[in-house]
Amino acid sequence: MSGNSIGKLFTLTSFGESHGSAIGGVIDGCPSGITVDIEFIQKELDRRRPGQSPFTTARKESDQIEILSGIFEGKTTGTSIGFIIRNKDQRSKDYSNISNKYRPSHADYTYQQKYGNRDYRGGGRSSAREHIARVVAGAFAKLVLQKYNITITAYTSQIGDIEINTCDFSQIEKNPLRCPDTEALPAMTSLISQMQEEGDSIGGIVSCTISNVPIGLGEPVFDKLSARLAHAMMGINAAKGFEIGSGFKSAAMRGSEHNDVFYKKEGKIRTKTNNSGGIQGGISNGEDINFRLSFKPVATISSKQETVDKEGKETTISVQGRHDPCVVPRAIPVVEAMAAIVILDSILENNAINI
Amino acid sequence: MSGNSIGKLFTLTSFGESHGSAIGGVIDGCPSGITVDIEFIQKELDRRRPGQSPFTTARKESDQIEILSGIFEGKTTGTSIGFIIRNKDQRSKDYSNISNKYRPSHADYTYQQKYGNRDYRGGGRSSAREHIARVVAGAFAKLVLQKYNITITAYTSQIGDIEINTCDFSQIEKNPLRCPDTEALPAMTSLISQMQEEGDSIGGIVSCTISNVPIGLGEPVFDKLSARLAHAMMGINAAKGFEIGSGFKSAAMRGSEHNDVFYKKEGKIRTKTNNSGGIQGGISNGEDINFRLSFKPVATISSKQETVDKEGKETTISVQGRHDPCVVPRAIPVVEAMAAIVILDSILENNAINI
Amino acid sequence: MSGNSIGKLFTLTSFGESHGSAIGGVIDGCPSGITVDIEFIQKELDRRRPGQSPFTTARKESDQIEILSGIFEGKTTGTSIGFIIRNKDQRSKDYSNISNKYRPSHADYTYQQKYGNRDYRGGGRSSAREHIARVVAGAFAKLVLQKYNITITAYTSQIGDIEINTCDFSQIEKNPLRCPDTEALPAMTSLISQMQEEGDSIGGIVSCTISNVPIGLGEPVFDKLSARLAHAMMGINAAKGFEIGSGFKSAAMRGSEHNDVFYKKEGKIRTKTNNSGGIQGGISNGEDINFRLSFKPVATISSKQETVDKEGKETTISVQGRHDPCVVPRAIPVVEAMAAIVILDSILENNAINI
Amino acid sequence: MSGNSIGKLFTLTSFGESHGSAIGGVIDGCPSGITVDIEFIQKELDRRRPGQSPFTTARKESDQIEILSGIFEGKTTGTSIGFIIRNKDQRSKDYSNISNKYRPSHADYTYQQKYGNRDYRGGGRSSAREHIARVVAGAFAKLVLQKYNITITAYTSQIGDIEINTCDFSQIEKNPLRCPDTEALPAMTSLISQMQEEGDSIGGIVSCTISNVPIGLGEPVFDKLSARLAHAMMGINAAKGFEIGSGFKSAAMRGSEHNDVFYKKEGKIRTKTNNSGGIQGGISNGEDINFRLSFKPVATISSKQETVDKEGKETTISVQGRHDPCVVPRAIPVVEAMAAIVILDSILENNAINI
Repeated sequence: MSGNSIGKLFTLTSFGESHGSAIGGVIDGCPSGITVDIEFIQKELDRRRPGQSPFTTARKESDQIEILSGIFEGKTTGTSIGFIIRNKDQRSKDYSNISNKYRPSHADYTYQQKYGNRDYRGGGRSSAREHIARVVAGAFAKLVLQKYNITITAYTSQIGDIEINTCDFSQIEKNPLRCPDTEALPAMTSLISQMQEEGDSIGGIVSCTISNVPIGLGEPVFDKLSARLAHAMMGINAAKGFEIGSGFKSAAMRGSEHNDVFYKKEGKIRTKTNNSGGIQGGISNGEDINFRLSFKPVATISSKQETVDKEGKETTISVQGRHDPCVVPRAIPVVEAMAAIVILDSILENNAINI
Repeated sequence: MSGNSIGKLFTLTSFGESHGSAIGGVIDGCPSGITVDIEFIQKELDRRRPGQSPFTTARKESDQIEILSGIFEGKTTGTSIGFIIRNKDQRSKDYSNISNKYRPSHADYTYQQKYGNRDYRGGGRSSAREHIARVVAGAFAKLVLQKYNITITAYTSQIGDIEINTCDFSQIEKNPLRCPDTEALPAMTSLISQMQEEGDSIGGIVSCTISNVPIGLGEPVFDKLSARLAHAMMGINAAKGFEIGSGFKSAAMRGSEHNDVFYKKEGKIRTKTNNSGGIQGGISNGEDINFRLSFKPVATISSKQETVDKEGKETTISVQGRHDPCVVPRAIPVVEAMAAIVILDSILENNAINI
Repeated sequence: MSGNSIGKLFTLTSFGESHGSAIGGVIDGCPSGITVDIEFIQKELDRRRPGQSPFTTARKESDQIEILSGIFEGKTTGTSIGFIIRNKDQRSKDYSNISNKYRPSHADYTYQQKYGNRDYRGGGRSSAREHIARVVAGAFAKLVLQKYNITITAYTSQIGDIEINTCDFSQIEKNPLRCPDTEALPAMTSLISQMQEEGDSIGGIVSCTISNVPIGLGEPVFDKLSARLAHAMMGINAAKGFEIGSGFKSAAMRGSEHNDVFYKKEGKIRTKTNNSGGIQGGISNGEDINFRLSFKPVATISSKQETVDKEGKETTISVQGRHDPCVVPRAIPVVEAMAAIVILDSILENNAINI
Repeated sequence: MSGNSIGKLFTLTSFGESHGSAIGGVIDGCPSGITVDIEFIQKELDRRRPGQSPFTTARKESDQIEILSGIFEGKTTGTSIGFIIRNKDQRSKDYSNISNKYRPSHADYTYQQKYGNRDYRGGGRSSAREHIARVVAGAFAKLVLQKYNITITAYTSQIGDIEINTCDFSQIEKNPLRCPDTEALPAMTSLISQMQEEGDSIGGIVSCTISNVPIGLGEPVFDKLSARLAHAMMGINAAKGFEIGSGFKSAAMRGSEHNDVFYKKEGKIRTKTNNSGGIQGGISNGEDINFRLSFKPVATISSKQETVDKEGKETTISVQGRHDPCVVPRAIPVVEAMAAIVILDSILENNAINI
């Protein structure tokens, strides 16, 4: 029930500040006997790591994982998995001016008010470096989900006001924006470049598809699978909106148009459309789970902004720290990780009652 | 951790099927010494009750609450509060044809697959009558929140493609659609009437504002207040999308435009804009919390639809049962209830660490 | 995480005061498709009910169960099971003198201090009538455990200083003290009669054996099966001590004497002795689980006692209310119920990770 | 809800195997602004560390703590506290013979059965080295409890059949057995020496007193403070029995003798006796909390024992590994740590509802 934990049966408890010694966590409830593909886990971390493209922070971090427990002879043992990733490039001086001023739309003010003090270096616990622990747990979850043939694919579907028109999954990892539409890509790239030049930032939308989901995941009534996904996704830094299936478009639709008609295909009960986004009554129905997640523009911008200091005195702030002009590309592995955690946790929960 | 429970410290555990003997629940963690205004609780139930307008199901239910424990001499005692609401008008024959056929976009198929059997009468546990327990717990939460002067106001902001342009809170409870824009109201009303006549249904959007929220609610990193609200809201039947503050619009915004600049007003630190929707870094900052929730059109429609039966054979179904053409008006007290539960629970959680 | 809930996957959330309208609860996580033998459930309640023998409170209660949800066509549906038992014989006058005085070794003082007010009628929430909800949940759990052939047998092993010397399970339900040793029974009976005559009370010990437990239940490291049983048992009113296997006797034993040597019997790995009480490293090993639970003498006695009143003024109290001279016989079904809840919950938890 | 976590609001999630790279954990919910006395934390670890006396394992471990997060400028920040203690002296060869044989009364067999594989080196996760993480979390809890002036004192009250007759707290840390009775000490010492010489082991009892406990801790009905202490204590390796206040002696007592009469002392409501052990109705009453915990003799003994191997074939085993002849002295800081965790967690939980 602690705020730094997620999951019921497959759980991640995480720790670590941007400029502390390490980011890490404990994964509990991972089934035993899973072959631990360290290269895969590291590759997932590398997908989130800074420095993959010109559009990410200049911070240099290798984000090398060290697993401390729970693995024996290359397999999970069923006991808790502790891991750490050391922080290396902690240029604290970059952030010294924020110790007494509140950066607009950051967590400086709220952390200070809630806790009475805070680690202001690089945003401390509110930094997106915290996502590292999620990616590790998500990688473990993905290794388990392979047994079910479940795939999770997140991608950039909008940057600023530029939306994708086509979706070719094979393109996603081939460009730094993780955009599946090569025609929309140049405009997106130039928009982000422009933001970078202007010291500004831009928002965007991540879409995600989960395929081969077993029927029956999700618990009525409060822990509908959609509700648990919403919780996990809205817990990612900078997330502002979540929608499943038809999402906000459902508001303007009629029942006769929205209902997903059942039919029979290759011996299986399927639906002709998928406005439900793979979840009906809070329970997976075997169709693809589709959801979208909106991210705000990064709060760290170079231009001078008005603000107040710790004493409440009005002042201005200019943040010269390292930052991405758009979080979306590096948020994608995080979205997948959180999805993997929720899906695996739901599988375990559903397993439990099948006596 | 059970799916029929919500909350960490202020919790609701609910039970009951549409056509069972009763809907009920247990509220645990309600602070002691709260004067229990039964009339207020019943009034909240009445706001959700069928039969308030021509646009609701013809089912006749008085939804009279019976509180069984936890109250003594008119005040809460701090012990668990059990309550039931008897079902009265259970015309099971209306629903007899669904025992063997799966209604499109209902929970029939997924419940059957998950559990191997189901109470098919009126949707059983997946019926929106389950929301009754939420309204009761929400009413208790609201009674506690009065001590903090916190107000929660939900309203209809869109029906079909008709959006409100103005928002006058004083109008909300004066019309059956709970619409705060009297100019948009006629079009909304006629759209719903049309749906009713055509045996169809329509979606919509509920907006909600929470005012006077203490600073510091919400727990990093997985239980951000926005994440917990998302979880609670997406657990409401028919919810398809959730957004906080700037929401999906944030995707197209720049940081320089989106950032909420701090300033000083009447001795307090405030933000000039509120794209954050009252939550920064997952923690409330004292500004109004604003969120929106999209609802799909009711799945129950009168027209004949294709579907399959339990044996997977393709067939057709015509559902003549009682239903609302649009869930939005009666979902509003449910949205408020869930918001009240989350806010109170977050207050208690934040209280805990203030030693 | 609420104090009125127990269990992780198979959970009971209970409510109700001694002199309120009803005792009840919600069972969540009960697997679907279990045939609900109402007679069995009622029989379990009858085993705990007052009025079974001359040695129980004169309170007249039929303790008739009403199940409100979660059952359809005689089987569990997998949804939450709500139930109530109405209180009938609430002679509040018996307890009127305790509204302002604290009964020694009761919960009057601590409830008042914790909550600021309390339902003082018959002990309110701290009354042993609360155990009713546990017996109901335990009965459901037992119905599920039948599928595993698991049996749970609790019995009186000590009343006052009279211990049993033999243990014939077939005798337990044949005498009102639930004593498996017919030779020790007369002395126990006369001791309890004497207590009743003298307006005094006496303590005792309940022993419990759980047979046919699957290997592998219990979760390292904090939720060892022994730890979870200890939690469940020490949560029963009047419990003062819990021991498993060799228990407190282990303190005086040597390793060479205490170690349970493994051997092979009928193709299975077994232990020659069972000092472990069926649990090693917190995990069941397939041997019988044996534990013992000590109960203090009932705090309600007729003789005049010194005490203080709500204002802290010293005074005396004489409690003429109805009570048992010894809780042990009626605690036995409660011990079994709590054991059933823990064992089933552990089975579900262990199921979860077997992917 | 994961087995490697304990606590609701102040939580410890731990990880680490005896011969893995590190033992560690995450503490969540620690209030902010607490000055972190690292020396004190290290001293607590040193109290549990091997090598303090001739009666402990020959394993050489400095058990040096590294705190990775949650502390800034010497104070807790309210965010999660990650920590590790590197294992140094991992002489795996000592344990090589247990990879295929099950040591009697160890967790080898049950872990293997539950998980299908296990880290057999030094007992892996079932090793008492896991207790290290508990001591760290307990040390943090103690730092917070200092604000309440709460003291927790555990000590040896029995080794084998030698019981203490007097209890002088000032003696406890002055002798390697942590025995408060200098007259009983020589006999205890010689008994343990004898066990060591004979390659055998011996059990014992730890007693614990918690003073200055606020009134009102503990949650009815399932989370009575006594039940939560029982859970925490019975989760310690080798624990076989737990009793509070009068404990098992209560069985032979009469109510007139057992009841703790209230009276007034220095303006406060107190009880003349303390058979309740400081807890009434599951809630602390302000008197000292007294409990006792029985430990079995260490399962690792040098003499040859019968057993079976992984294939179930009968064989013999001789374990020459390093071990203590009696766990009691080094268990004492662990008992205190678990008590501190439970008490602090209960304070936070009680705080929550005091709105």
